[in-house]
Amino acid sequence: MKVCRRVNFNAAHRLFRKDWSDDKNNAVFGKCNNPNYHGHNYVLEVWIDGEIDPETGYVIDLKILKEIILTDIVERFDHRNLNLDCPEFENLIPTAENIILVCWNLLRANLDEKFQLRLKLWETENNIFEYDGK
Amino acid sequence: MKVCRRVNFNAAHRLFRKDWSDDKNNAVFGKCNNPNYHGHNYVLEVWIDGEIDPETGYVIDLKILKEIILTDIVERFDHRNLNLDCPEFENLIPTAENIILVCWNLLRANLDEKFQLRLKLWETENNIFEYDGK
Amino acid sequence: MKVCRRVNFNAAHRLFRKDWSDDKNNAVFGKCNNPNYHGHNYVLEVWIDGEIDPETGYVIDLKILKEIILTDIVERFDHRNLNLDCPEFENLIPTAENIILVCWNLLRANLDEKFQLRLKLWETENNIFEYDGK
Amino acid sequence: MKVCRRVNFNAAHRLFRKDWSDDKNNAVFGKCNNPNYHGHNYVLEVWIDGEIDPETGYVIDLKILKEIILTDIVERFDHRNLNLDCPEFENLIPTAENIILVCWNLLRANLDEKFQLRLKLWETENNIFEYDGK
Amino acid sequence: MKVCRRVNFNAAHRLFRKDWSDDKNNAVFGKCNNPNYHGHNYVLEVWIDGEIDPETGYVIDLKILKEIILTDIVERFDHRNLNLDCPEFENLIPTAENIILVCWNLLRANLDEKFQLRLKLWETENNIFEYDGK
Amino acid sequence: MKVCRRVNFNAAHRLFRKDWSDDKNNAVFGKCNNPNYHGHNYVLEVWIDGEIDPETGYVIDLKILKEIILTDIVERFDHRNLNLDCPEFENLIPTAENIILVCWNLLRANLDEKFQLRLKLWETENNIFEYDGK
Repeated sequence: MKVCRRVNFNAAHRLFRKDWSDDKNNAVFGKCNNPNYHGHNYVLEVWIDGEIDPETGYVIDLKILKEIILTDIVERFDHRNLNLDCPEFENLIPTAENIILVCWNLLRANLDEKFQLRLKLWETENNIFEYDGK
Repeated sequence: MKVCRRVNFNAAHRLFRKDWSDDKNNAVFGKCNNPNYHGHNYVLEVWIDGEIDPETGYVIDLKILKEIILTDIVERFDHRNLNLDCPEFENLIPTAENIILVCWNLLRANLDEKFQLRLKLWETENNIFEYDGK
Repeated sequence: MKVCRRVNFNAAHRLFRKDWSDDKNNAVFGKCNNPNYHGHNYVLEVWIDGEIDPETGYVIDLKILKEIILTDIVERFDHRNLNLDCPEFENLIPTAENIILVCWNLLRANLDEKFQLRLKLWETENNIFEYDGK
Repeated sequence: MKVCRRVNFNAAHRLFRKDWSDDKNNAVFGKCNNPNYHGHNYVLEVWIDGEIDPETGYVIDLKILKEIILTDIVERFDHRNLNLDCPEFENLIPTAENIILVCWNLLRANLDEKFQLRLKLWETENNIFEYDGK
Repeated sequence: MKVCRRVNFNAAHRLFRKDWSDDKNNAVFGKCNNPNYHGHNYVLEVWIDGEIDPETGYVIDLKILKEIILTDIVERFDHRNLNLDCPEFENLIPTAENIILVCWNLLRANLDEKFQLRLKLWETENNIFEYDGK
Repeated sequence: MKVCRRVNFNAAHRLFRKDWSDDKNNAVFGKCNNPNYHGHNYVLEVWIDGEIDPETGYVIDLKILKEIILTDIVERFDHRNLNLDCPEFENLIPTAENIILVCWNLLRANLDEKFQLRLKLWETENNIFEYDGK
């Protein structure tokens, strides 16, 4: 049985490598390499796979899951500049792939081992990402 | 090949256990334990996994699948109080997890064995559930 | 300049008149007359029409508007039975038309007179309502 | 790690078999058998499963994936009559199942073997399809 | 008080003028001039402006409005070729502007004079139209 | 008759006044005052009110309107830092109210006088804005 809580966070980022020339950064990352940053409304679905607790009828209380996500993800990344404000991306390009990977590791560390974890992330309405740790 | 029909039903419910005190019900189920009930617009996706019939190009005629879902699910639960009107929840807390489980069993019983069945249920735009029988 | 904050609340209700027979209630209100109630996820957009404050660039701080809506509307109606728990509907059928009217009056009383107020309410994805006090 | 690009195309089609009588076509395909065609706004999600390139933080540059999809799918099917304009459906009924199958084969031929490919197709907001080549 | 019912219909169409050359039709209507037609999922919102009936709490029973729309609009245009199957467009280019105009006239003729009527039509998720008879 | 084209742009911004202390900026703008910026996916609907051209059935060719919006709005603001990259906001706080005002003035200057112009802007799925020049 899989259960999901959906949340939002809004952040700025820039895609580039310090060890690349401006030309190479522009060639690979295009307008995402704007040195003054741009931003997105990220939508994150956190999916937990586990057994129904026969006592409560819940896999996990989604009120509790919501609190975990607010603490681990939303307070950390919402209204932040991922490159400048977030040590997780000090040496990691904040592509959506790396953002979902970082979120998965942060949430995995605070979830009971009995649960499997899968994330789905919208960077825009046309660019979507999914990661389950494998 | 997987094909899906999406439907809606609107129902009232209350989350509580008769064998628990009011305090314990409130501690676990919070405002979902309102003794006078509250309600939701449930959205259900019914996914069928099977082979394309080379004669029709269909896995299953979605007009037929729609009729099965209307009979098995929508007529049963739409504009109902899940706790009071539906014997399926007489001894089962109508959490979304249990609702999707009950729907899966109802649909499974009326589908050809050659099809696999997976359901996805939105209780709100932020609380989502998925079940495939395993 | 018009600005809007969108919120959700989930409630149970029943459409009927005590002074009508069961037959008449069923003829007029159909399955919405279920004596055990049913429910909906209501989505409410609160639109404020006013001038931009040149100092802040805001018509109204949406964080403040959100708090007003949470206090006036969401805490009052979310996870409630509109017929049984809400004195606003003691002598008023909780149709979506009457719900949006009640919400409008509640919000109007707490908004500066310089603002015009318009509400939009989704009862389902197909049934939508709008009211601006006129 | 899975990444997705979403696109749209709008097309006309008719579901029928030349080797069936009108009666049989109507019995099986109903109003989808209108000899003058009808149409849909198709929404296609193209999901790629692969490893993150540690140099770029991308699984695949979605700008490149977008170009592949525009060339292979959108330019081919957008504002077309699938039955009359598209040789892919000369001998294949353009059901959504067959459309997603054709799209999958077209995209698979132009994608690096290291990527797995899964498609999701909305024919209407209630009829959805998914195919991953298996 | 404004109330709305939302419906869908799926149709094929072609934009062109018989009295223009192919070149002129292509210059003006582009790919919408495909002689073999293309199609769309049209979404129509029907908005009625009127007084709340104090007896029922309804402006108009949306179940009745739904039936009017199904008869006047959906049965007429759903799964049809607007150019070939619908006399309304025999001498009228089926642009979305003309479609919404035709729908407005059809619905206006069957609605009580006390109601004002406004329509909103999505031809795609990016092309939207609105008409209120003025 | 009103017609609309919907577009997206993704940008970074910061809400603050240089002539205010940090404390006052934080008190008024909260987390939107992050000195390193944050960002949003902005969705803009551009509504044109005019007469149907009887020759084409169009109020305005939406392909042409799309080009105007791409040139005037999307190329100017997409993947930009509104505070640092856009002279329009050099002395104007980039609140959504001011963004929609700037967009309206930019589009108004390039539209035929016979058209009325109204804009609708989503900054997030819960914060929405509308402006028609009055």
